[in-house]
Amino acid sequence: MSEFRYNYLWDTWVIIAPERERRPHDYPPHTYGPQSPPEKCPFEPGKENLAPHEIFAVREPGTAPDTPGWKIRVVPNKYPALRIENPPLPEGRCLYDTVGGFGAHEIVVDTPDHYKHPHNFSVEEMKLLLYVYRERMKSLYGDYRIRYVLVFKNYGREAGASLSHSHSQIIATPQVPKLIDTVVSQSRKYFTEKGRCYLCDEVKFELNEMKRVVYENEEFLVYCPFYSIFPFQMRITPKKHGHDFAKLSDQELYLLADALRLALRKLHKTLVNPPYNFFIHTAPPPREEPRRPHYYTGIERFFHWYLEILPRVSVPAGFEWGSGYYINPTTPESAAKFLREVVL
Amino acid sequence: MSEFRYNYLWDTWVIIAPERERRPHDYPPHTYGPQSPPEKCPFEPGKENLAPHEIFAVREPGTAPDTPGWKIRVVPNKYPALRIENPPLPEGRCLYDTVGGFGAHEIVVDTPDHYKHPHNFSVEEMKLLLYVYRERMKSLYGDYRIRYVLVFKNYGREAGASLSHSHSQIIATPQVPKLIDTVVSQSRKYFTEKGRCYLCDEVKFELNEMKRVVYENEEFLVYCPFYSIFPFQMRITPKKHGHDFAKLSDQELYLLADALRLALRKLHKTLVNPPYNFFIHTAPPPREEPRRPHYYTGIERFFHWYLEILPRVSVPAGFEWGSGYYINPTTPESAAKFLREVVL
Repeated sequence: MSEFRYNYLWDTWVIIAPERERRPHDYPPHTYGPQSPPEKCPFEPGKENLAPHEIFAVREPGTAPDTPGWKIRVVPNKYPALRIENPPLPEGRCLYDTVGGFGAHEIVVDTPDHYKHPHNFSVEEMKLLLYVYRERMKSLYGDYRIRYVLVFKNYGREAGASLSHSHSQIIATPQVPKLIDTVVSQSRKYFTEKGRCYLCDEVKFELNEMKRVVYENEEFLVYCPFYSIFPFQMRITPKKHGHDFAKLSDQELYLLADALRLALRKLHKTLVNPPYNFFIHTAPPPREEPRRPHYYTGIERFFHWYLEILPRVSVPAGFEWGSGYYINPTTPESAAKFLREVVL
Repeated sequence: MSEFRYNYLWDTWVIIAPERERRPHDYPPHTYGPQSPPEKCPFEPGKENLAPHEIFAVREPGTAPDTPGWKIRVVPNKYPALRIENPPLPEGRCLYDTVGGFGAHEIVVDTPDHYKHPHNFSVEEMKLLLYVYRERMKSLYGDYRIRYVLVFKNYGREAGASLSHSHSQIIATPQVPKLIDTVVSQSRKYFTEKGRCYLCDEVKFELNEMKRVVYENEEFLVYCPFYSIFPFQMRITPKKHGHDFAKLSDQELYLLADALRLALRKLHKTLVNPPYNFFIHTAPPPREEPRRPHYYTGIERFFHWYLEILPRVSVPAGFEWGSGYYINPTTPESAAKFLREVVL
């Protein structure tokens, strides 16, 4: 029997429909070859001139910016959705409200290797990538006009990657985006009612039930959320309360790298190279907003950061776009079992 | 320069990014041949036994249910996400809330012709399809436990259609889905502040500006919303205020058929057979809810129904899933110009 499950943090319902149950081999394997050959790839070492000037890089000592010798390189998006030069000014056009396209849109080239992807990274390589995310987040929040920094990754064409060379993206916006705003208000509601953090409770509950847990280490829990909107969706949540990804220590980055690497390797093996997205939901900085005083006060106590992995093996259609609800044909319990048991 | 535009009814922002401007020929043409050959298609006349028993049909006089002779046929989904037999009972599982998978999930076989799609329908054929939508909506709302009926269509594999024979779907749920709930509360907020209906104002404004209008007839306006989340997105809105699709007269159905047919033909020609979804947002019936008294009171005055067409030529990726914001690389003004001027 199918059932509705409530996603508290995102404040929506998902329909878990095991009548339509799909097991891993029901999803077609993906062969994601290089779409752009290395010769024309703007992310290749030696082709640095094909991308804009670098903002940040992890480099061999003594190598110059915009030359080879880097391990990870951050550049502005060549076709940015938002620019730091655009004034973030609100403007009314009779009925409609607009704000100038202020913000930042950066590309993190994850590796110099054209054919290497995160599921093939060593723990050290993954840690370096997370280190770059952390540093860019810290730097971007230095601009007081920036209200949110979203770090995300698209892997595979069906997940929105237009270049095959492994890269992540960072978009910084002058407002807190809708979904994060919902997570903030729902987390605050839970905290106000119970005096506890929602995700602290979720971690405790999942560790007790063990039905949806995929992997854990000292600091992080990898599990399929009870209310997953996509088949084989996974969340990585710190076991100890923490609201801010950018505050992670190097040791915590290492353990997160271990958990993320395992999760992506398991996903890659279980579904045979599926496209996926992942993103980090960290707390917005507690800045006062004229129309919402004290909205972020105490956020360090009620917001709990997490990293979400969304495999893109099902296609959201008219129902999902029209309702904001999702139908997930694979139960999170069954997905977790497959992911837990897959031999790497 | 890119800009944020606010979508009042859906309460979110979209980034319109003309730096990334894409014109119609930048989107690859789609060749959507038959995925399932007619011999094995459960929607073919003569193969009625491959689908569940029909619920409703428009038939030649004297033909029996579940036999050929139908023009449009409604059957339960063979793999339903929701069932009328499941009790809609709320159940708590410690931390999590669930509700039994009660509801309905129906398939409307739009035509007996395996190769015909709505952009090839005559106005009469389209009107018959809309008539079936209306009748099913009326019938399903007869069950007091049903709080919402969403009618939608998926065309093309990238838009979620798993069978190529033209069909629509109807899902009825025991709660008002999230997006419709947002439209209700935003419409009510606007009405409370201004004493006017939001979409009545939008229609008036669009007819005055004429920048985003694609087509109009006596009763309906077809336009690209100012805050479109997808390239070439279109909305069909009745010019006269009306909250309930199911209350349309036959004459109004005819004019809606004319507008929808034109919109789909223009879309098909402009983007060369793109996949798309469309859905109807009509007002939920004004039933009292224990925890929200009077929430729907006056809904006939503040809710304005509409039909939304979402072409699926761009891929929502990590940014969209992680933020709830969208990046649209084609301005609605430019999309409307192409759609208005395309020669059919």
